[in-house]
Amino acid sequence: MTKSADGEGIGRGLRLTAVPRNKGVDAAVAAARRVIDTLLHAGDGSAAEMSRIAEQLNAIADDVAKHAPAVAERMVDMWRGEGVTRHDPVTGPENAIAPPLVLYGLADGSVEGIVVLGLPYQGPPRYVHGGVSALLLDHALGVANHWAGTPGMTGTLTLRYHRPTPLFEPLTVTARRVSVNGYKIHGVGSITAGGNLCVSADGVFVAKHLPRPR
Amino acid sequence: MTKSADGEGIGRGLRLTAVPRNKGVDAAVAAARRVIDTLLHAGDGSAAEMSRIAEQLNAIADDVAKHAPAVAERMVDMWRGEGVTRHDPVTGPENAIAPPLVLYGLADGSVEGIVVLGLPYQGPPRYVHGGVSALLLDHALGVANHWAGTPGMTGTLTLRYHRPTPLFEPLTVTARRVSVNGYKIHGVGSITAGGNLCVSADGVFVAKHLPRPR
Repeated sequence: MTKSADGEGIGRGLRLTAVPRNKGVDAAVAAARRVIDTLLHAGDGSAAEMSRIAEQLNAIADDVAKHAPAVAERMVDMWRGEGVTRHDPVTGPENAIAPPLVLYGLADGSVEGIVVLGLPYQGPPRYVHGGVSALLLDHALGVANHWAGTPGMTGTLTLRYHRPTPLFEPLTVTARRVSVNGYKIHGVGSITAGGNLCVSADGVFVAKHLPRPR
Repeated sequence: MTKSADGEGIGRGLRLTAVPRNKGVDAAVAAARRVIDTLLHAGDGSAAEMSRIAEQLNAIADDVAKHAPAVAERMVDMWRGEGVTRHDPVTGPENAIAPPLVLYGLADGSVEGIVVLGLPYQGPPRYVHGGVSALLLDHALGVANHWAGTPGMTGTLTLRYHRPTPLFEPLTVTARRVSVNGYKIHGVGSITAGGNLCVSADGVFVAKHLPRPR
């Protein structure tokens, strides 16, 4: 069994996305995800006293904001090191918007992850928003380029929607680099549900990077 | 000055996205957005007592969950009526993942909205995640199809990234339907910052719908 750097046994590859710490800000963010989800499940017609809940959430935000450093300082801290990020909106354990998707690097050069999406990611009734699938695939193609040793930024991304992508079911997100031509990196990816292709992606990335704040 | 259905003066067109109610679940969701954002600003190195904050957030989620109806019942309620949705991940006032983007329908047939994105939507340092731009544009093209009277579901979507899209600055998101050919609906859209084109989108939608739960 392969072991990731943090010692977590993962079986099918090397974990390429940040490992949640189950404490500190990661625990608060995991709880914030539950709040986002339950608010959507409850809705405006629920008997929950929403004005009291709004007050409680605003008090928490005020409390956390008091301890937040200046943005410039935080930027340096959040981009420290050259490894995976902990704050991105797809895989980040510090970002409550991220489902989060966990991606593994496989021996064949591809990356893969399994994720179940709930109501916050809904587009059509009971199905994933097409733009959310685009978000996940853009990120997966980017991680696949890293895994292949040729990271870059998205230049062109084409998504094809083959069938609706279901909520509440395990989705397999895969991506791999196909070729490199000068500064252009070509990759493909897909989202499948129960073995059925839902969305495929084709991307050209460019071998370029924005500097990390120092 | 044009007035939207709810009486809000908007000046440059008809508001096509749900109007936040500033009370009820919308107020709780707005507060949840502040929590998401401040947690990212604070990070793991902050002096905030994150385990206490996690406990408080989990208690709120437990409280809200107690009042949530069964999913099937909630689905009927959230899809009631044929108007704009209040829960989608781009414009929904009931969805804390949504920035939210507010879109207006203009007399020339296009839709337009201005949004400022913060840390939850970050990809490269100080810039918007490419997949988040894809999410916003997919949704804007969909709303433009509605506005043009030919709604549909995304078939193919191509994004071109011209320059990085900045965080913390007003972004203009526009979209319009270009043509209809049988069941195929062709649309284009863009995100600009300070008049500079950051991302353009080209989409083919199909005139098909998944039934709303009843």
